[in-house]
Amino acid sequence: MTSAYNSFPMTGGNGQHSYLHNSSYQKAAIDGAEEKTRQCILEKLSRQLNSDLGIVRIADFGCSSGPNTFHAVQNIIDTVKFKQLKENNEGSLMPLEFQVFFNDQPNNDFNTLFRTLPPSFQREYFSVGVPGSFYGRLLPTQSIHIGHTSYTTHWLSEVPKDVCVKNSLAWNKNYILCNNAIEEVTKAYKIQFIKDMRVFLEARAEEIVHGGLMFVLGQCLADGVNMSETWQGIVVDTIGNCLMDMAKSGLTSKEKVELFNLPVYFPQFSELKREIERNRCFTIETMETISHPLEDNPLSNNFIISMFRAILNTIIKEHFGEGVVNELFDRLAKKLAMYPIDFKKCEKHVNYFILLKRN
Amino acid sequence: MTSAYNSFPMTGGNGQHSYLHNSSYQKAAIDGAEEKTRQCILEKLSRQLNSDLGIVRIADFGCSSGPNTFHAVQNIIDTVKFKQLKENNEGSLMPLEFQVFFNDQPNNDFNTLFRTLPPSFQREYFSVGVPGSFYGRLLPTQSIHIGHTSYTTHWLSEVPKDVCVKNSLAWNKNYILCNNAIEEVTKAYKIQFIKDMRVFLEARAEEIVHGGLMFVLGQCLADGVNMSETWQGIVVDTIGNCLMDMAKSGLTSKEKVELFNLPVYFPQFSELKREIERNRCFTIETMETISHPLEDNPLSNNFIISMFRAILNTIIKEHFGEGVVNELFDRLAKKLAMYPIDFKKCEKHVNYFILLKRN
Repeated sequence: MTSAYNSFPMTGGNGQHSYLHNSSYQKAAIDGAEEKTRQCILEKLSRQLNSDLGIVRIADFGCSSGPNTFHAVQNIIDTVKFKQLKENNEGSLMPLEFQVFFNDQPNNDFNTLFRTLPPSFQREYFSVGVPGSFYGRLLPTQSIHIGHTSYTTHWLSEVPKDVCVKNSLAWNKNYILCNNAIEEVTKAYKIQFIKDMRVFLEARAEEIVHGGLMFVLGQCLADGVNMSETWQGIVVDTIGNCLMDMAKSGLTSKEKVELFNLPVYFPQFSELKREIERNRCFTIETMETISHPLEDNPLSNNFIISMFRAILNTIIKEHFGEGVVNELFDRLAKKLAMYPIDFKKCEKHVNYFILLKRN
Repeated sequence: MTSAYNSFPMTGGNGQHSYLHNSSYQKAAIDGAEEKTRQCILEKLSRQLNSDLGIVRIADFGCSSGPNTFHAVQNIIDTVKFKQLKENNEGSLMPLEFQVFFNDQPNNDFNTLFRTLPPSFQREYFSVGVPGSFYGRLLPTQSIHIGHTSYTTHWLSEVPKDVCVKNSLAWNKNYILCNNAIEEVTKAYKIQFIKDMRVFLEARAEEIVHGGLMFVLGQCLADGVNMSETWQGIVVDTIGNCLMDMAKSGLTSKEKVELFNLPVYFPQFSELKREIERNRCFTIETMETISHPLEDNPLSNNFIISMFRAILNTIIKEHFGEGVVNELFDRLAKKLAMYPIDFKKCEKHVNYFILLKRN
């Protein structure tokens, strides 16, 4: 059934290789942004937002199968409640009700998400799942007070067609990702990114109430840095090499490898800023880089492999077949053991924190 | 993970034994009620409901994994749109937006539900899934305009404790269902039913807007009829017999069978009416019996077995273990072949159609 979707969710379930158990790097980033999120809500959330019968609607776009989304959402709710308490000393407090919309692609593992929700006696919100691509409308007009998305918009809605077309100038022959080594490839990815970002922001502008907030967290490149200079870029290029080796050994075909590209693009910081500014419905209240709590620690090979496996398992299985995954990550382990990543020499990804306010 | 839930969803997925492919009896009932639902919306839905920015929110409580819920919801939406068109000749039509809340227990197969949704280009509504028991609050206060539930409220929130307690007066020793053969058992089930119905209606009364509608469809017994006199009662009693036989052959234990009871209770028509009337937040606009399109056709044994397997698979697997299911339904097939159900001699279940309006 999943082949009908142009999307590749994080590995579902709660097994050894699941996203559930292999998303601590992403969790660290969210933790790092928690205090900033709190400050933003306290300073920027309008009081009159809570008018609609006291219902506050929050959406997390691209929530995956948990558990990071639960932490992010709880932090937002705690802060809104604290703000209400602080600002209403009159005693006539109308208790707020929170409804949280957990969004991801229809082939995301919502079953795991729903079964791992905090138990209802601890949870102070009504929760619902919203299946669908965030590159399009998901929710009624002006129905959301606070939107949130975290480490999601580097996933494009699709791979730019030309990068898989032999003889095209934008053919990404030797790579499986836009690592900025081939100018025409970068251009093709950039065009797709601009289109997707426009659609994403237009949809959110319709869904979020006037005065509502939209948090956008994620990773991009510093201005002037190429993807191939970052450790993440090196890992993916190494995965590409392993696939080539496997094609040579007959474990998959050269053609399959050549047709494989990740629908992922990391823009540079000012490029991202420019695309957000293009949308006139939102005002950028905050756009800054934040440090990732783990960015100064070299990561172990096992950690890296588990993380990339949880992220890429589905897309690799879909393209190459189930049998390839174990072998591929075994080979990646061997390559990384032989040629360890020199984190000191790598450029760092930039973690950004953006707060948009709906005009 | 599922053992944390006191609920037993219909068989998920889209395989041979799934509810998806074995719910045509329920589908026929919904089809039979379609025209009546249409009439009710045209006559009883208040015009001013569509005030909230033109968003109409619809909830299906106990939707299972599809596809019946999609038909029911589409019928409601088509009718609301038709009504709006008919009543607004002025030309200044604000297009309505529909948001549909598909509710079922957290261990329902929402993945299948989401992946089998009508494709978004055909679907004129935003859809969300709501995990949780409808015997409790699921949605914010006054946030739903039209509620719907179909063949769900005979599932109790739990089996009354005493019916599984040896030496209790209400011990249901030889049966796995309240078939009305033992008075104390009936009483225990009835108490649970009254409590559950009260909680169900109280929760819906908080969630549905004033003037909003709540459709309740389902099956009950005619006044004076016992469950054991209906073909459904006979089938379940036969399943109970098969389990006893299997215990005798050592394929499961006698104790396990004695501890097994279904959390299912079919009230009599006037009993159901009384419990609904107890809740003063709703007015009964319509409460009538409707004919089931299949009720005059004797059903084939294969049809009956597939239907009960899709419904009971999860609960049997949970209690007896995976291995028991195939054997049990093979034995049921043999028993029904040897002792075919004489549909002419059976009492019929009553299919009811209820429309409640929130005061």
